[in-house]
Amino acid sequence: MSNVPLSPPVVQESVARALAEDVGPGDLSAAAVPAHATGEAVIVAKDTGLLCGQPFATEVFTQLDRGVTVQWLAGEGTPLEEDQEIAVLSGPAAALLTGERTALNFLQTLSGTATAAAKLTEQVAGTGVRIVDTRKTLPGLRTPQKYAVRVGGGHNHRHGLFDGVLLKENHIAWAGSLAAAVAAAREAAPHTARIQVEVEDLAELHQAVTAGVDAVLLDNFALADLRTAVADHSDHCFLEASGNIGPANVREVAETGVHAISSGALTRDLTSLDLSMRFRASAPA
Amino acid sequence: MSNVPLSPPVVQESVARALAEDVGPGDLSAAAVPAHATGEAVIVAKDTGLLCGQPFATEVFTQLDRGVTVQWLAGEGTPLEEDQEIAVLSGPAAALLTGERTALNFLQTLSGTATAAAKLTEQVAGTGVRIVDTRKTLPGLRTPQKYAVRVGGGHNHRHGLFDGVLLKENHIAWAGSLAAAVAAAREAAPHTARIQVEVEDLAELHQAVTAGVDAVLLDNFALADLRTAVADHSDHCFLEASGNIGPANVREVAETGVHAISSGALTRDLTSLDLSMRFRASAPA
Amino acid sequence: MSNVPLSPPVVQESVARALAEDVGPGDLSAAAVPAHATGEAVIVAKDTGLLCGQPFATEVFTQLDRGVTVQWLAGEGTPLEEDQEIAVLSGPAAALLTGERTALNFLQTLSGTATAAAKLTEQVAGTGVRIVDTRKTLPGLRTPQKYAVRVGGGHNHRHGLFDGVLLKENHIAWAGSLAAAVAAAREAAPHTARIQVEVEDLAELHQAVTAGVDAVLLDNFALADLRTAVADHSDHCFLEASGNIGPANVREVAETGVHAISSGALTRDLTSLDLSMRFRASAPA
Amino acid sequence: MSNVPLSPPVVQESVARALAEDVGPGDLSAAAVPAHATGEAVIVAKDTGLLCGQPFATEVFTQLDRGVTVQWLAGEGTPLEEDQEIAVLSGPAAALLTGERTALNFLQTLSGTATAAAKLTEQVAGTGVRIVDTRKTLPGLRTPQKYAVRVGGGHNHRHGLFDGVLLKENHIAWAGSLAAAVAAAREAAPHTARIQVEVEDLAELHQAVTAGVDAVLLDNFALADLRTAVADHSDHCFLEASGNIGPANVREVAETGVHAISSGALTRDLTSLDLSMRFRASAPA
Amino acid sequence: MSNVPLSPPVVQESVARALAEDVGPGDLSAAAVPAHATGEAVIVAKDTGLLCGQPFATEVFTQLDRGVTVQWLAGEGTPLEEDQEIAVLSGPAAALLTGERTALNFLQTLSGTATAAAKLTEQVAGTGVRIVDTRKTLPGLRTPQKYAVRVGGGHNHRHGLFDGVLLKENHIAWAGSLAAAVAAAREAAPHTARIQVEVEDLAELHQAVTAGVDAVLLDNFALADLRTAVADHSDHCFLEASGNIGPANVREVAETGVHAISSGALTRDLTSLDLSMRFRASAPA
Amino acid sequence: MSNVPLSPPVVQESVARALAEDVGPGDLSAAAVPAHATGEAVIVAKDTGLLCGQPFATEVFTQLDRGVTVQWLAGEGTPLEEDQEIAVLSGPAAALLTGERTALNFLQTLSGTATAAAKLTEQVAGTGVRIVDTRKTLPGLRTPQKYAVRVGGGHNHRHGLFDGVLLKENHIAWAGSLAAAVAAAREAAPHTARIQVEVEDLAELHQAVTAGVDAVLLDNFALADLRTAVADHSDHCFLEASGNIGPANVREVAETGVHAISSGALTRDLTSLDLSMRFRASAPA
Repeated sequence: MSNVPLSPPVVQESVARALAEDVGPGDLSAAAVPAHATGEAVIVAKDTGLLCGQPFATEVFTQLDRGVTVQWLAGEGTPLEEDQEIAVLSGPAAALLTGERTALNFLQTLSGTATAAAKLTEQVAGTGVRIVDTRKTLPGLRTPQKYAVRVGGGHNHRHGLFDGVLLKENHIAWAGSLAAAVAAAREAAPHTARIQVEVEDLAELHQAVTAGVDAVLLDNFALADLRTAVADHSDHCFLEASGNIGPANVREVAETGVHAISSGALTRDLTSLDLSMRFRASAPA
Repeated sequence: MSNVPLSPPVVQESVARALAEDVGPGDLSAAAVPAHATGEAVIVAKDTGLLCGQPFATEVFTQLDRGVTVQWLAGEGTPLEEDQEIAVLSGPAAALLTGERTALNFLQTLSGTATAAAKLTEQVAGTGVRIVDTRKTLPGLRTPQKYAVRVGGGHNHRHGLFDGVLLKENHIAWAGSLAAAVAAAREAAPHTARIQVEVEDLAELHQAVTAGVDAVLLDNFALADLRTAVADHSDHCFLEASGNIGPANVREVAETGVHAISSGALTRDLTSLDLSMRFRASAPA
Repeated sequence: MSNVPLSPPVVQESVARALAEDVGPGDLSAAAVPAHATGEAVIVAKDTGLLCGQPFATEVFTQLDRGVTVQWLAGEGTPLEEDQEIAVLSGPAAALLTGERTALNFLQTLSGTATAAAKLTEQVAGTGVRIVDTRKTLPGLRTPQKYAVRVGGGHNHRHGLFDGVLLKENHIAWAGSLAAAVAAAREAAPHTARIQVEVEDLAELHQAVTAGVDAVLLDNFALADLRTAVADHSDHCFLEASGNIGPANVREVAETGVHAISSGALTRDLTSLDLSMRFRASAPA
Repeated sequence: MSNVPLSPPVVQESVARALAEDVGPGDLSAAAVPAHATGEAVIVAKDTGLLCGQPFATEVFTQLDRGVTVQWLAGEGTPLEEDQEIAVLSGPAAALLTGERTALNFLQTLSGTATAAAKLTEQVAGTGVRIVDTRKTLPGLRTPQKYAVRVGGGHNHRHGLFDGVLLKENHIAWAGSLAAAVAAAREAAPHTARIQVEVEDLAELHQAVTAGVDAVLLDNFALADLRTAVADHSDHCFLEASGNIGPANVREVAETGVHAISSGALTRDLTSLDLSMRFRASAPA
Repeated sequence: MSNVPLSPPVVQESVARALAEDVGPGDLSAAAVPAHATGEAVIVAKDTGLLCGQPFATEVFTQLDRGVTVQWLAGEGTPLEEDQEIAVLSGPAAALLTGERTALNFLQTLSGTATAAAKLTEQVAGTGVRIVDTRKTLPGLRTPQKYAVRVGGGHNHRHGLFDGVLLKENHIAWAGSLAAAVAAAREAAPHTARIQVEVEDLAELHQAVTAGVDAVLLDNFALADLRTAVADHSDHCFLEASGNIGPANVREVAETGVHAISSGALTRDLTSLDLSMRFRASAPA
Repeated sequence: MSNVPLSPPVVQESVARALAEDVGPGDLSAAAVPAHATGEAVIVAKDTGLLCGQPFATEVFTQLDRGVTVQWLAGEGTPLEEDQEIAVLSGPAAALLTGERTALNFLQTLSGTATAAAKLTEQVAGTGVRIVDTRKTLPGLRTPQKYAVRVGGGHNHRHGLFDGVLLKENHIAWAGSLAAAVAAAREAAPHTARIQVEVEDLAELHQAVTAGVDAVLLDNFALADLRTAVADHSDHCFLEASGNIGPANVREVAETGVHAISSGALTRDLTSLDLSMRFRASAPA
């Protein structure tokens, strides 16, 4: 499976920030470990889920001590079984202990999001609909979270305000009309960006299509209205459904034929994947 | 209620980072809004919970446009009712729209954590036990999350590896013995830091107390063992219980008389508080 | 005219960087000026062109000394006559002298690019074609330069690799075929991004349209081929012409009916606008 | 030829900034390339000029993927012929494609400036005059541009306000007199910095020399006056001519015997060198 | 000897900052050295003292040129004799010369502080008292300085305001009473932090102990009062003496039996260790 | 007295860094102070010396809380008497307490250096010699330290390697000869930089003068040799004496007639000025 690759500077910067907040001027407890002790540890899944976050976890140890080696036993995006060993780490004991929590925090957070994306994606299997994320993310973690959504089989909506146009009720109010808002955005935006408008009902959808939008966000539409929207417009306009769609109803929404279903909960809420690092027999210096 | 105040530079830096990831080189959709339009908006709670994150939300608009004013209608840490108005914002329309999502992301995330802390805290009301957080946090968000725990009535454990000693199984293994690990940490750490040791059973607890530790983490102790620990050691050692303690059993653990109960789920998982920003009638230029 | 607004943090960061390289640890020559002297200066155009860069020039003095006031006598994007006064600055003399060059460097650079954009835009007046920039920019100055293109009446192409898809010969070679490359990109990219493909001749254009692309880059097409492309595809595909198009031939390319013409020279080369700061009579302390 | 070496941290920081603006959270188009594909590419000159910017171009790939190797076929500062191959790159295909534009942007910009410097330098060959740059540079790019001037055989004037004294009309006005300004600057500046004064005519030159300056900037002097200045002062004062001196008249100015000629256009304007990266046959995975 | 390890990111960041201020855009004098010359140099002690700062000195050359190798002839914390060779460096001559001063500045500063710590520590040998530092440090150098104190055999007090509680006269005044201040701090602080109070006399000491503090700072106590404090409280409260304690009287204070003696002069004043770098015969290219 | 002004961004950045290391995620002890308490404090000199560091101390409170006002009772560079009140601060109590130590650390460090500079300067009063600093500074504090030297009446040598040329024994060895080194440096350096050479005896001084240097560093010259150097060369070459010159012998060196005397100890060692902040009666909320 091909994918949008993570940018290495983003990984480095996210990890540097996380290490700064955890290690700060130094790990006091590491003083209990002899300076030259080395050891080996394994990261183990304590629940089922999708593995995500390898580049971040590896980078944690790269920044702390280049003497640590990390060998992954399962690939990024692999479904994990309970008690499955995910990685073997070996090297200076102090660095293993110092980096443990930061590495696990990345893995548990991103695996949690990837797992949630995978669950929604599986529920719409075969429908051709794409599950997409939103801008409702954890502040400062948007790029890692959107990567996790992709690893989980989901798709990204725009990254932020700069790479896509989504006109909402208030843009329209200030512009004077839906048509005026669309015209202004089309004129101002790069031609590489699609113009999408959020609509509340079929009448607004009609206005949007007439204004020549490329995509619409059908907010809180009833299933019947979604089906009408699909029947009338799915060949010339990208149709995204949103609003309180979760595991309980995502399949029936997907079966209406919309192109995409967005879920704020995917990146706004989080159930982390339970992981732990277990240290194997080591030979203290 | 007095509290550890947030450091302003931390707020500024967290917000700058969140704005960079959302706004980047510029808000394409803002082009639909006349440049000199002004407006007014209210932030509204769409669910019940504890309000948290005001300094971050205010800072979002300070960084975007000093012409925006933010007036809070409810204080930090206030329990919110559904549909309660939390804040009134007024100023340049483009800045209100550009900052909306970043401000809400801070509020929904931190209010979610504060609400979770408040729920656990309320369940142990009257027992005198403190609910404490852990280092299982969202990478890069530790300071804001720990602030939210405090706003929710919880307490903080150490911030990171630099401001407290917590010796675990592996520190002990590499040091040679629990006593050796404690001695090494006591020797190396500032006298302002307490020495805490994680123990798995009463025998290890006994060893720890004998080694002169200031605090222990009683990991996955049965209730009976917690009671024994309290009876034997609560007057000369800080007792923290941890391990799969959540809403279902936190009260009975608290009633054993331990001093603190730590919960990884508090900051590792997240159920955001649902909030929205509604724009009031505005007079477009 | 509405436009994509500049993000204030981008302005602040660009100016901070420019001041650091010019002022460094301190302005040695400012020692010749009495510490409390104040004065007044005017920025004057020494050639004709479009004014661009006001937010950057104002920010220079904000960062150096909040006691400096900057009053603009001509609006951003205004055509300037030779010797026209653009701004009046007053405040501490040392700050005026220290900031002079950095402020002028932003203005002369961005006015130069805006002027170039305006010249191309004027040449295609009435054709409805948009003049667009490219990623051939001065390293570190992309956001300011793309802003200057907009101020000059031009349009932006994608900002970078993250906000638009443009598949070139090599993407296609590695993907195996144009259709495979388009399918992979469509699958991986947010639905908010259009898929554009660079094509070298009409046969490739036909392949691209068949593969369902949203836009094509017609690279070095003869005028006749551009006309064929327009006749066959302009209603269902965004057509951008590029390749050695400058003042000499931009009008005839525009008249073929393509939607956009991109120019690398617009941001890759630079003829700065000649400006100077003249100090008015001042009353030295 | 020896030279002032580039500081590695400056190169790293310039490249990090340029990559951030181009790649941001990730390269969408790279998704069309199989994740493990590798390839080879050559950078080719499409015009004649002087090659400059190698350390920056190499650093681009170092930061993106250490698996990329860059082999230079022509040395920094080499005159290039049209179609000359400059470098061979090999490694992961996605990294080659992602880094292509940023690497070329550094090379085309700096080669453009080095080429301009070389042209002016060649025109004064044999006169012993040095062509020097100014502080009229592209904001944020001063160190790379001044490096390019050196590679092109030119010389640097002061880097900024902190490493040289140049007193202009307004310093003198605020100081009260030329002599007072020189005395104040001499007193305040490190003894390692020469004191230079800008003069408008022979009378001011006489004042400056009397005040004991080390160097003067002869602004817009007629050729005859330059010759007088040289005859009277070139043995005890560094004489720099400036003001509308370009390819058309630089030789005659040089032949007056001044020590240096400064050119703002050298770094204020830019004609980039045309370069491209061509991908050779690759074996997609 | 085990110790709290330095965090690698802290070392990197301190060195990057020091190199930026010394090397800036480039080393002008390095132009006198042929570009490909290599050489060898030794760092030599010119006085007696304790060696400290190796990780910083090594990092200087890592950041400048990875071709430089640094071989340490004496371990961190070793007592040095006059004229003792400490390290051998070899590699590119320009990098050796460019990095010389920054590397020596770290070594001389940190060795100076480590030496001062060692002197005080030796004077209290056998008493069991720990010599501790304070927050009176050189702005921006706290982490390196506190590391040097540890290398010199001293101990650290809290790093800053975030990792320990020390209530002084004014906290107490604003809280209303010593007991109220202690209660508020105990309630607000992590349980991992001890509560320490500064007291001026035995009466205040009594109040503090009654309020249940973990530690006290006995400020400017007479020796007799220190002895009383020790007799009455040393088994249940950590006793730190401070106030004008230096080489002349530290032994007699230590012999009172207090647990620790803090010295502001240790990190507030500085007598650097005299070091130099000598270049050995080299073979210029 | 005119002077080279401090660059505001340098002050801001130095203070931000110092606050980060002291306050980090938050001031635990501030929790003992009621959130809305306000107060007033005075900074008092506890010893005699020269006041230096006001812009840094003011900036500390600006960054912490804009509600704090700082009123200086003595000007920057003023000689202080014991117990003299220097500044009155008023505002939120928590901010006053949180900023106290960082503000004092800047003042005590920079006043210490300014005082040392003033002492040396006074000793050479009337001789016309300038006391200059060196690059032997505290890592990361060079700009503040060099500012303090100026406030103390001393002068700065070059700031770093980028703004002055100083050729030492090793540059000369690698260049092949003193004349070759001077020629290479002269060729490579901006004409705004003087060329200075370190010489060990009169023979080398003669070589240097013959090579046309602008300045020499007379390292460890006997007084008689300094007098010879002055007699022979002081009218055409800047003569700087260095090497073990301190309060004991600076006057006799100055009386030889050299232009400058440099002292490494001035910025390499430090005796801080003793200062304290005293809180006045406050009205706790």
